[in-house]
This record gives sequence, structure tokens and C-alpha cells, in this order.
Amino acid sequence: MPKIVDHEQRRREVADGVLKIIAESGVTAVTFRNLSTATGWPVGVLNHYFAHRRDLLLSALTRAAELSAERQRALTVSLTGREALEAVLDQELPMDSERIAMSRIFLFFYAEAVNDEEAREIVMKYLRRWRRRVTLSVEEAQEVGEIDADLDARDVAADLIAYNEGLGLHMLLDPDVMSRAVKSPPTPTWVRRLSAQYSKSRSLSAE
Amino acid sequence: MPKIVDHEQRRREVADGVLKIIAESGVTAVTFRNLSTATGWPVGVLNHYFAHRRDLLLSALTRAAELSAERQRALTVSLTGREALEAVLDQELPMDSERIAMSRIFLFFYAEAVNDEEAREIVMKYLRRWRRRVTLSVEEAQEVGEIDADLDARDVAADLIAYNEGLGLHMLLDPDVMSRAVKSPPTPTWVRRLSAQYSKSRSLSAE
Repeated sequence: MPKIVDHEQRRREVADGVLKIIAESGVTAVTFRNLSTATGWPVGVLNHYFAHRRDLLLSALTRAAELSAERQRALTVSLTGREALEAVLDQELPMDSERIAMSRIFLFFYAEAVNDEEAREIVMKYLRRWRRRVTLSVEEAQEVGEIDADLDARDVAADLIAYNEGLGLHMLLDPDVMSRAVKSPPTPTWVRRLSAQYSKSRSLSAE
Repeated sequence: MPKIVDHEQRRREVADGVLKIIAESGVTAVTFRNLSTATGWPVGVLNHYFAHRRDLLLSALTRAAELSAERQRALTVSLTGREALEAVLDQELPMDSERIAMSRIFLFFYAEAVNDEEAREIVMKYLRRWRRRVTLSVEEAQEVGEIDADLDARDVAADLIAYNEGLGLHMLLDPDVMSRAVKSPPTPTWVRRLSAQYSKSRSLSAE
């Protein structure tokens, strides 16, 4: 059999190596030299796949979005409704070294995306897919009466994701927020505020 | 009278010039040359106050935090309770060109702060001051019965600010989120979810 190099597979492995470096030492530590040490591949081979440092970072961003999608899919296979919703939101918080790496690479490219079309496209695709996933879970929770059926599921999803991103950002920046969130994850409280009990009183007062 | 140069005043004016450039063209457009055009001061004079581009950006960050504090203070003089709370949160959203500049410079330094102690300190000071201000408004709203008195005001403040930051981030990145937020500011809805009506049913079910 001829030797077949699976280029996509190798790109993914390199991207995982980049994420590992980011988890351990942050985005600034991503260099071809460090990556060569981490993956065992010579710099020349790495350069064959990635010409510039920026390409390494973009590959890590794409890989992080891919990993996030895979995990969210797995969570919504085993869970439903409000449980799935909470799990899918918590999944994106920087609660362990792997998710810290993911949050760091996203934060790096959120800042870049303000001026960079290529980064913005990947970031927007990630956000839109995440919103669709969360919207589906909100709709499921509405069907079984866990969330007020009158609320717009897309609005609820967009708001929960905004909250989640802000919380993740503050967890990265502030050790106090990090330890508070790890000790007692705050997302469920916010999801519960969308429950029928609250909205019934709201609907009554709106009548 | 001898000519007295108010150095602090001049630094502030330069920082305002930097924020103006960021509002119009983003962080990447901040150069000594552009700033010289915008402020009318020769590059040599600017260099007397700021040795490096990074110093310009840090001065804009410090100035943005200062402007934010001034405006929040003014809002809490004229408003109280839930009204003040909503105004103080909305104040930090990128709703006009000045606040877009502020959000951009914060986003830039949030990403930097992950690896940069100096940026992290300014950013943390800003976040902590903002949390104290919001906590005071939450407590006021609790005193007049607009927010459930049983909730921890600091937790509520931290969560509302997290939501606000995530929303601001998505407004910067996604034109759809921006137009949705401008058309119908979503913060009041989340503040109202903290009202007594909801929490009474929660307290009952917790008994």
C-alpha cells in the first residue's frame, strides 16, 4: 500500500497542539518552535501546512469551533430541554484547561474580528451555530413547560449566550469570578428565571 | 503670568483624540501620525507625553474608564433604583460612536489583559468599580421592592455586568445583534426578571 498522508487529519493534530500550548501558556506562547517541541514535527513540516503564525492561530480557532460543535451535539443527544440547555451553555465556559484554551483563542479573535474579515467570518459562524443549538434547546424546554412558551426562543438564546460570553470573559480576567463560577455555576439560575412561574405573573400583569 | 502647561489636561486631550480615532476607524488606525492630524500637535510633542503606541492605547483605556465612571456617577445622581440600574448598564453598551470606541478599546485590552499585568490592572479596576456602582443600584432597587430583597446584590450585579459585556461584544461583532439591541434594548427585560413576582414563587418552592 502506498503511504497516504491524511492532510486534514494532520492539520487537526497540529491545531490540537496549538490549543494545548494556549491552554498551558496562552496565545503569545504560540510559535513554530514551541509547536515543533509540542508535536514532535520539525518546523519545516509545520511550515508545509501553515506559512505564518496567524495561520496556526486561525487553525486553532477553527478547531475550537469544531470541538465545541461536537460536544454540544453529544450533549443534546444524551440530554433534553432545560438540562440540555444548561449543559450546552456550561460547555462553553472556561471551566477546565481545554475550555480555557478555547475561551482564550476566541477572545483573541473576537478582538481581531473587529478589523479582520476572515476572523470575523469564523467567529460569526461559530456564534450563529451556537445560537441555533441553544434556540433548539429553548424550544424543547418550552414544549415541556420548563420555559414560558410565550418567549421568543431566538431572543432567549441570544441573551443567554451573551450572558455566557460575558461570564466567560470575566472568568478569564478575574480569579474571584472564576472561583465563584466553579464553586456554583450561575447559568442554571438565569435559565430558571425564564421559567413559567415568573412569566405567568408577567403575563397576568400585561393583561 | 508664566505659561503653565497643564500636563494632566494635555494627556486627557490626547487620550480623547485616540478615542476619536478608535470611534472612526478602530484600534489599528491609532498611530502617532494619525493622532497628530487629529489633535493638531506635532508628533514630537506627542512623543514627549507618550513614548510608544502602546502608551497611547493605555491612555485611551484609562480615559475610557474615567469617562464611564463620570457618566455612571451623573446617572445615579438623577435616577434611582431600577431606573438607575438600567441606565448604568445601558451606558456601557456600544450604542453610539463614543461608546463604540470605548467598547473597542476595552475589547482590545481584555484580550491583552490575559497576558499583560498592566492592562489587567486597569481593566480589573474598571470592572470592580462598575460592579460596586451596579451593586449600589441593585440594593436601592431592593429597598424600594423593585428587586427581590433575598437576592445577593453583588451576585446580581456581577451577573448583569457579565450579560452586558457579552451583549456589547456581540453588538460589535454582529450587525444583526447591534440593530436588535438598538431597536429594543434587552437589559430592562433581564432586570425585570429579578423582580419580586418571580422570586416570590421561587422562595415558595424553596421552602
